[in-house]
Amino acid sequence: MKRTIKLTLAYDGTDFAGWQVQLRQRTLQGTLEEILSKITGEQIRVFGSGRTDAGVHALAQVVSFDTSTAHSAQVLHKALNCELPHDMSALSVEDAPEGFHARRDAKRKRYRYFIVEGRVRNVFRRRYALHVYRVLDVDAMCLAAKSLIGTHDFASFQSAGSKRETTVRTIFDLSLARLPEPETNVLQIDVEADGFLYNMVRNIVGTLLEVGQGAQPASWVTEVLAARDRQRAGSTAPAQGLFLVNVQY
Amino acid sequence: MKRTIKLTLAYDGTDFAGWQVQLRQRTLQGTLEEILSKITGEQIRVFGSGRTDAGVHALAQVVSFDTSTAHSAQVLHKALNCELPHDMSALSVEDAPEGFHARRDAKRKRYRYFIVEGRVRNVFRRRYALHVYRVLDVDAMCLAAKSLIGTHDFASFQSAGSKRETTVRTIFDLSLARLPEPETNVLQIDVEADGFLYNMVRNIVGTLLEVGQGAQPASWVTEVLAARDRQRAGSTAPAQGLFLVNVQY
Repeated sequence: MKRTIKLTLAYDGTDFAGWQVQLRQRTLQGTLEEILSKITGEQIRVFGSGRTDAGVHALAQVVSFDTSTAHSAQVLHKALNCELPHDMSALSVEDAPEGFHARRDAKRKRYRYFIVEGRVRNVFRRRYALHVYRVLDVDAMCLAAKSLIGTHDFASFQSAGSKRETTVRTIFDLSLARLPEPETNVLQIDVEADGFLYNMVRNIVGTLLEVGQGAQPASWVTEVLAARDRQRAGSTAPAQGLFLVNVQY
Repeated sequence: MKRTIKLTLAYDGTDFAGWQVQLRQRTLQGTLEEILSKITGEQIRVFGSGRTDAGVHALAQVVSFDTSTAHSAQVLHKALNCELPHDMSALSVEDAPEGFHARRDAKRKRYRYFIVEGRVRNVFRRRYALHVYRVLDVDAMCLAAKSLIGTHDFASFQSAGSKRETTVRTIFDLSLARLPEPETNVLQIDVEADGFLYNMVRNIVGTLLEVGQGAQPASWVTEVLAARDRQRAGSTAPAQGLFLVNVQY
């Protein structure tokens, strides 16, 4: 009998060519489908809550798939963690309500971006953060971030190459905070929204960095948002600093 | 004119064959001496506060060396961080009092060991922690740890291959604590002492793990200490979980 499974997955995106299956590339979807097909003896197709780009990490990506396997969710969980490579980990596996779909049913997602500030590199975060050599004006970045919270047309923060019906999204939370001692030179940027346009978080971070580095005043971000023009925003921050934190249903 | 420099260094030990220079191996001492010799135009010999083993990391290793360079400490710092590989970072460079020696003058050192507990691997800590599949009895481990605090003969916790005049050391602090949410399945073990025997921290951790996994009662650690016999203690915990946290002078 067909069942739907909800799988929560952590991964270090460094050595993956992103989520989506690509020929002769190591991808998250490809790796997961291969292993699940082997465990169940079926051809498994998985759906992630979204397609993370090459180098983007996940603390808790949510994935759904249909299967006729007789294995319990618990057995699937153990089997998965035996088979998954060292940079992927199944946090939980559970039976989902019929018809559950990880992408279509997602209500909110939270992303996190890490920036290491200052002249001294952080060797332990080198795969998991952007390093900027100057100390950022975080107060100005916080002020600028406020103008992005709420329901807006985020066309200025959407990279080319995606087709979506609307570029209106609602950001519920956009907060910046330096980590506690002894990591006060690490800035954490959290964004929670009902959905994200292509590269939206990385474009927001790149834009806030213009403010943080003093190249633009905080008020400039309001103009960027209003312009609905990608050319007006900052550059796309590198993938390595970005984490998918969780998905709410 | 000869000056002595005090350099504080962070490194990810994963891809090094340890601190000490070895022929045709990538070592921390070798890498550092090569770069410092290039920057100063002299043959530089460095002294670390101790020789970390292959795979052991440092949040703040202290190094001393003599030089006749005209470069200021600030210039040396910048030059070092330009030249150091991505897994080493110079946290600070300063002129030290004449005759300062990073190893001989060290008064206290602190090490930290990370253990990830439970069935689910932590992909982001895979290079920086030991993974144990069962949940540990941390209360029992804390109780056992108490018997090691103070001045004792730690011969039971010294691996073969080192010659030291005395195996008596003073442990000022040995504390175990799980990390706060959301990383409650990560156990942090801190040890501060006036000095450490060869593999002492890793042997203490291996011994406490016997208790944490229920193979031995907490009181067994008192017997192990009293026996002054390496054969009686637990195995040597893997290098990857160990960090040199700081050195006090």
